[in-house]
This record gives sequence, structure tokens and C-alpha cells, in this order.
Amino acid sequence: MHDLLIIGGGPGGISAGIYSAIYKLNTVIVTKNIGGTIKDAPKVENYPGIGRKNSQETINAFKDHLDLFDVPVEKDEEIVIIRKSEEGFKAFTRSGKEYEAKSVLIATGTQVRKLNVPGEDDFRGKGVSYCAVCDAPLFADAVVGVVGGSDAAAKEALLLSEHAEKVYIIYRGEEIHPEPILKKRVMKKVEEGKIEVINNTNVKEIIGEQMMEKVKLDREHEGSDELELEGLFISIGGVPLTEITRDLGIEVNKMGAIVINEKMETNVKGIYAAGDVTDNNFKQIITAAYQGSRAIKEAYTYINSV
Amino acid sequence: MHDLLIIGGGPGGISAGIYSAIYKLNTVIVTKNIGGTIKDAPKVENYPGIGRKNSQETINAFKDHLDLFDVPVEKDEEIVIIRKSEEGFKAFTRSGKEYEAKSVLIATGTQVRKLNVPGEDDFRGKGVSYCAVCDAPLFADAVVGVVGGSDAAAKEALLLSEHAEKVYIIYRGEEIHPEPILKKRVMKKVEEGKIEVINNTNVKEIIGEQMMEKVKLDREHEGSDELELEGLFISIGGVPLTEITRDLGIEVNKMGAIVINEKMETNVKGIYAAGDVTDNNFKQIITAAYQGSRAIKEAYTYINSV
Repeated sequence: MHDLLIIGGGPGGISAGIYSAIYKLNTVIVTKNIGGTIKDAPKVENYPGIGRKNSQETINAFKDHLDLFDVPVEKDEEIVIIRKSEEGFKAFTRSGKEYEAKSVLIATGTQVRKLNVPGEDDFRGKGVSYCAVCDAPLFADAVVGVVGGSDAAAKEALLLSEHAEKVYIIYRGEEIHPEPILKKRVMKKVEEGKIEVINNTNVKEIIGEQMMEKVKLDREHEGSDELELEGLFISIGGVPLTEITRDLGIEVNKMGAIVINEKMETNVKGIYAAGDVTDNNFKQIITAAYQGSRAIKEAYTYINSV
Repeated sequence: MHDLLIIGGGPGGISAGIYSAIYKLNTVIVTKNIGGTIKDAPKVENYPGIGRKNSQETINAFKDHLDLFDVPVEKDEEIVIIRKSEEGFKAFTRSGKEYEAKSVLIATGTQVRKLNVPGEDDFRGKGVSYCAVCDAPLFADAVVGVVGGSDAAAKEALLLSEHAEKVYIIYRGEEIHPEPILKKRVMKKVEEGKIEVINNTNVKEIIGEQMMEKVKLDREHEGSDELELEGLFISIGGVPLTEITRDLGIEVNKMGAIVINEKMETNVKGIYAAGDVTDNNFKQIITAAYQGSRAIKEAYTYINSV
């Protein structure tokens, strides 16, 4: 019986682990991997105090900090369901393990969102990718596309432009909307002819033989509704990973994100949430780290009251 | 005319500076010093991702990060008053300088309420502390004191009791007055011999050589007016530094802290606040860093709307 079960090993879960050590809670962290979606960032420079680091260095900074304390981390374990128990909550892993705790922090993050168009699954790993930092070097001197208009999409395009011959950003909306510094960098690449932005356009289909060869667009671009691409990076956001909470009746918003208050409490007493899985509208590492830390203050009070 | 004037160089102000560079705002930071109250912590281990550092290393980590960007910092400058101007706000320094900006972030922090007894300044960081969550782990198996009788003092004592061998609560009034649940937990620790409460007593002096060694009391306790302590946590409140905002009509709570919403907005349009100066109830570096970062998202939207 633990005081607290932390599910997730991203910045939210790790920060919660650090604070739970400070608050002397009997905690266990259960996670599929360490680092969460930090691993998808080519470069991190927006977590105050750690400077400019690549993704692995950033993950290590958090992990090394946690390792200063004696918080058990069960890696490569996937929790599939959480249920109420007499004294708190029970969580069951895919491999059949069971954890019981008085309180739970859900910091499971998000999963990449798919386009759901024909060819997407067929050509995954054969041109279609969801992670530029993983795959960009495979597209040296190639012509590739990025689908999306957010910060994440702009970052993917910028990284790809360092490798590929040309990068098309294909965005369904009026105009891409990354944060200003990123947009400025994208526009510089546009001037240099390395990036081209195609707004108001959707990818309808991904076509090829062994490997993907082109995409079909829902609108003509330079006289054709087909665009030849050797790679397509899909960067249209994430789906909050809340499936494990389905038996608990935890409130989610219309995007599927867990609704929390300023204390990181969910609507279920004893269950807290932090990071990208929540309805916060500033999906940054600093937000996850803050929310994970703040949740512990509350969990500590709760655990000492039951 | 700047987009944003950041007042304060602690973790809130520096994080805001970093994010204002990411958001490409034309910002200036004006501050008496860099680091804010981090400088009072002998060691920092509660800011996720930077590990265990001394206070100067921690301050440098933030400052070095800020230095990656091109944000001007006016050090050794003290703003004495902010007033509304036609296009935004004007701030005046003690030395007669003037800054004008469309928006202002107040991250001036608090001044700890001091006991004002001999030795308090000499042994600050050498046993004397104002933050158990920051420093408790440094006092493993030590005998320490907490001065105060409120919720905050009780929480400090309880947390310290998880690390220290014994904790004395020294309170000037009849009886400590934390909320019942806290008091109950304190009393349980008293039964266990981990906490001892000394009511009706003031600390008159803090005594030591290199580090503090004991305190002098104004009343005898077990036959002596001296008590040997390796640490003394002074928990009698903090004073938010809001004097400069007095002409703006910014709302403060009964403790004098600036009231903000979840976007870090104050009741005055264009004025934001972050960190210990606000009414947040988790006064940690991670909170200040988050609030400073989050405020910029809002300031950016505001600046681009005026």
C-alpha cells in the first residue's frame, strides 16, 4: 500500500516524484518510459534554468534529479486500468502486476493524433512519421511535408529543413500560428526557399508503392492536387491518454483532457492530474513540472487526512 | 517604449524574460538584484531538473539561461513607483530613470518577516532558514527549532519532523493555532517525542561560531534559558513587496499579496504578477518560474491587441 502512485515518467511525473520525496510520501512511479514527449523535441530551450539542451540531455536532467532521492520507478510497465479499492485505488498493469495506493497522480501525457486518411497506416515507417527528431536524418536531400500549423509543426519543419532539400508545411487553416520566434525562423527559411507554406489545405490520401511517393490534396497547389513527397511528418497535436481512468468517472473536456482545478485535483477525491493530459492551455515542460510539484502539496494534505 | 517591463530578477522575472524572448517581445528587466530570495537558500533541490545546487549555482543556472537570449537587464536599479501613462505605464527608479512599457510584470517577491534578534542575519544560511520545504533535507537527524504558531509554522515543523531527530516549536502566544488537522498531526508527533511545543516563549538571540549552535529564550525551558539547535526555521510570515504599485489600485489580499487569476492577470489591465508577491499558496521556485512563463503568453496576446 503506497501513499501515492504516480503514473507517467514525463516532466510532470518526475517533478511529482521529486516533490513526493521532499514531502516524504511513500511513492511509486509506474511508467512506460522516462521523459514523456520531451523525447520528441529536437531541442529544448524553454524550461527556465536548464539552458539549451537536446531532448536526451533534458530528460537526463530530470531523471538525474529524481535519482538524488529514493523514489522507486517501475519502468517499462503499462497500467491498463485504475479502480477504486477499499483504502484507495488499485492499478493493474498489462503484465498483471497490481499497485495499491491511497492517492494517484495521472501524468500520462498525450499520444500523437493521426490524420486518419488512406495510406497513413500503410506508409508509417515508409515515409510517414510522427517524430522529426527521430527520423529527420533519414530524409537527407529529400522533399518532405509537415502537416500542421502549431509550434510543434513549425519545430518539425525547421529541423527537417536542416536535412531535407525542401519542406512543405501543409496546414488546413488560414495561416500557421507558431509562437513568434518560431514563425520568424520559418519565414526566414521560406525566403531561402527551404520551406514553403501551403495554407487552407488538407492531405486527403497518401500514395505510393513500397514507399510513399506523393500525397493527394483537397485543393490544387500550383496546378495540381498531387504533391510528390518522400516523407510526410504528421504534427497535429496529441490525444490525452486517459483510457486507464475510464472506470473512475473522471471528468474530461471535449478534447478528452482531464479537468483539474488550481490544486490539480480532479473531480474524484484522491486523484490528481498534471501535465499534457490535463486541460491546461499552456502545454509546456514548465507547466507539467509545476503541476506535478503542486499536486504533491495537495496529495500530502489528503493522505494525512485519510 | 517597451512591450513589457519586468520588475524583479528572481525566478519569476527571469523565467518571464526567457519566455518574452521566445515570444519575441521587446522587454526590459529592471531589478535590484538577480536571483531574488533564492539567495537565502543554502541549497536548492526543489526545482525539478536542476538537481541539487547551492544558491549561487541555482541563480547562475537561471541567469545563464536568460543570457542565451538578448533581453536587457538593468541591475542595481530600484523602481519606486509605477503610474499609468497614455500608452501604458511609466516606472520611475530611485536614481531618477524612467521606463515606459505597454505592459508590466510585477515579480518583486516578498521580504521575509524577520524576528529582528541578534544573530539572525549572521546565521542566515548557517542554520537560520525561512523555508522548510527548501531546506528540511539538510537537517537530517538534527535538532531544530521552528518559530511561529500558525498553519505555516505547523507545516514547517511537521515536514522537518520527517527529517530531523527532534523539532521544537517556539511560539510567543498561549498555544499554537494551526488548523485542527494540522494541530492533530503535530500532537501525534508530540506523543511520539518528535516534536515539542514551547508556548509563551520568544527567541531573544541566535548564538554560534561558524554555524548557529543555540538560541537564547526569554523564559526558562527545563531549567535553562538556552536551547541547543542546529537549525532555526523562522515562520512568522512574509511581506509582499507591492509598495511600488500603490498608485495603480492593484488588488491585494489581507496579507498584502497581489491577487491574480490563472492567467497571472491582476485587476489592472496590462499588469501581471508572478511569484511570491502574488497570492499563490505554494511559494516555490517552480511556482514563480511557471507563473512568470505563463504570464508572457497572456502579455503577448494583450500587447498584440493594443
